[in-house]
Amino acid sequence: MSDTYTPPKVWTWEQKNGGEFANINRPIAGPTHDKDLPVGKHPLQLYSLATPNGVKVTVLLEELLAAGHTGAEYDAWLIKIGDGDQFGSGFVDVNPNSKIPALMDTTNGQRVFESGSILLYLAEKFGAFLPEGGARTEAMNWLFWQMGSAPYLGGGFGHFYAYAPEKFQYPIDRFSMEAKRQMDVLDRHLAEHEWFAEEYSIADIAIWSWYGQLALGRLYNAAEFLDVASYKHVMRWAEAIDARPAVQRGRMVNRSFGEPEMQLHERHDASDFETKTQDKLGG
Amino acid sequence: MSDTYTPPKVWTWEQKNGGEFANINRPIAGPTHDKDLPVGKHPLQLYSLATPNGVKVTVLLEELLAAGHTGAEYDAWLIKIGDGDQFGSGFVDVNPNSKIPALMDTTNGQRVFESGSILLYLAEKFGAFLPEGGARTEAMNWLFWQMGSAPYLGGGFGHFYAYAPEKFQYPIDRFSMEAKRQMDVLDRHLAEHEWFAEEYSIADIAIWSWYGQLALGRLYNAAEFLDVASYKHVMRWAEAIDARPAVQRGRMVNRSFGEPEMQLHERHDASDFETKTQDKLGG
Repeated sequence: MSDTYTPPKVWTWEQKNGGEFANINRPIAGPTHDKDLPVGKHPLQLYSLATPNGVKVTVLLEELLAAGHTGAEYDAWLIKIGDGDQFGSGFVDVNPNSKIPALMDTTNGQRVFESGSILLYLAEKFGAFLPEGGARTEAMNWLFWQMGSAPYLGGGFGHFYAYAPEKFQYPIDRFSMEAKRQMDVLDRHLAEHEWFAEEYSIADIAIWSWYGQLALGRLYNAAEFLDVASYKHVMRWAEAIDARPAVQRGRMVNRSFGEPEMQLHERHDASDFETKTQDKLGG
Repeated sequence: MSDTYTPPKVWTWEQKNGGEFANINRPIAGPTHDKDLPVGKHPLQLYSLATPNGVKVTVLLEELLAAGHTGAEYDAWLIKIGDGDQFGSGFVDVNPNSKIPALMDTTNGQRVFESGSILLYLAEKFGAFLPEGGARTEAMNWLFWQMGSAPYLGGGFGHFYAYAPEKFQYPIDRFSMEAKRQMDVLDRHLAEHEWFAEEYSIADIAIWSWYGQLALGRLYNAAEFLDVASYKHVMRWAEAIDARPAVQRGRMVNRSFGEPEMQLHERHDASDFETKTQDKLGG
């Protein structure tokens, strides 16, 4: 990286060292190979991985089931992004953007992609975790805020602080400042409100998966660097959500990294968690 | 920028050269000064600037008016982000994230922020530019896609290619690759569909404001660098939308930069455009 770089007239793809995950980044879209997706017995088929965007959806599904919405029963299939599963033809048919999570509703053949769209779809389908009237608009304000802001946290701060091949100061400074500004936006709102919109909703679930988990020290090993403890209201709210049993289950689904006892690679039945708990007790 | 940089344990704010717009970036949120927002005579009060996110909303408002939804009459007030208008207390009350666009619906006192949330709110309020059933879900998939993807185009590619204080090769390569991948996602969809979801909708408006205008050569002087002409289906779709009279009006509203004849700093009446056209003919 040199500060005397002059961009060419037309950008061309040279496969260089792009840091961790570089092998899955391409300048073209579409499938790289033919592969059908597996389909299980439940109404909803989820193809995902327990990144913050994946966790949003599994937390909501577990919350829906805990609230008695049996129509939210789902099969969760692991998409190994390091192996390029997201470029299989079946996956691309569900999400042409080749990103997790992706959802198929087998009751009506509907594809749903983008985590925010999946949250809205499920909340509307089951009439849950999304208030009505003005509170609905406020929840949507914050849901869209999360979708438009987290790229600066994940693709900006997280990439340059944790995954880039070198520590480049300028982008680290730029995206650290933005990550802290975003945390402060949330902290000021939560200083005066229990939740983002009157009641616990998909806005909280979406924001918690990124910023709540950042506060809890689970992202990028950056808790000290960003001084997350100073955002006291975010911390209070993050811990309250983290204590919910559905959230604890949702975090485990499609997890193939981190602590082994948290890893439930696939989820096809509520009892899958019990087996996992027994593993934990036994192990 | 050095590749021997070692981040400190805790990030601190040092005001350095952050390139163009650096003076409006801060690591803290909230108002910097007391200032009420102006309020005009119409039901909807918009506080904005004709960036791609701002244009989304003025295009939809002009489309709604053109379709006969007189309840969509609006006053559009210019927010000078270089002067810090977005940090005034009145603006922060409407959008705690201090970004344009922000909307107040004076008929019910509702605040709406985030451009995607404003598009959804208006489409639902007037029952227009958002299809029903499965096509609605598909439109929402693409609307959320735009919200989650454009930060890589604007805050990533645009910043490092056009605004950063130096040309840094690594982030330019990283975000150029992603911008091209995104264009290819759109191109492949538009190869087989006229619009993003059955009919012209808020998904098209949102995506056009960023990617359509990128294709038309209006963003970052990057048309050649990203070889936008190669995305032929995006180009066909971008030109079709650009030819709509409502889109041409929407682009002018709250514009305070670029060609003088395109600048309508504030919009308070449909006749404001006629005056502007006379200026153009006269000048």
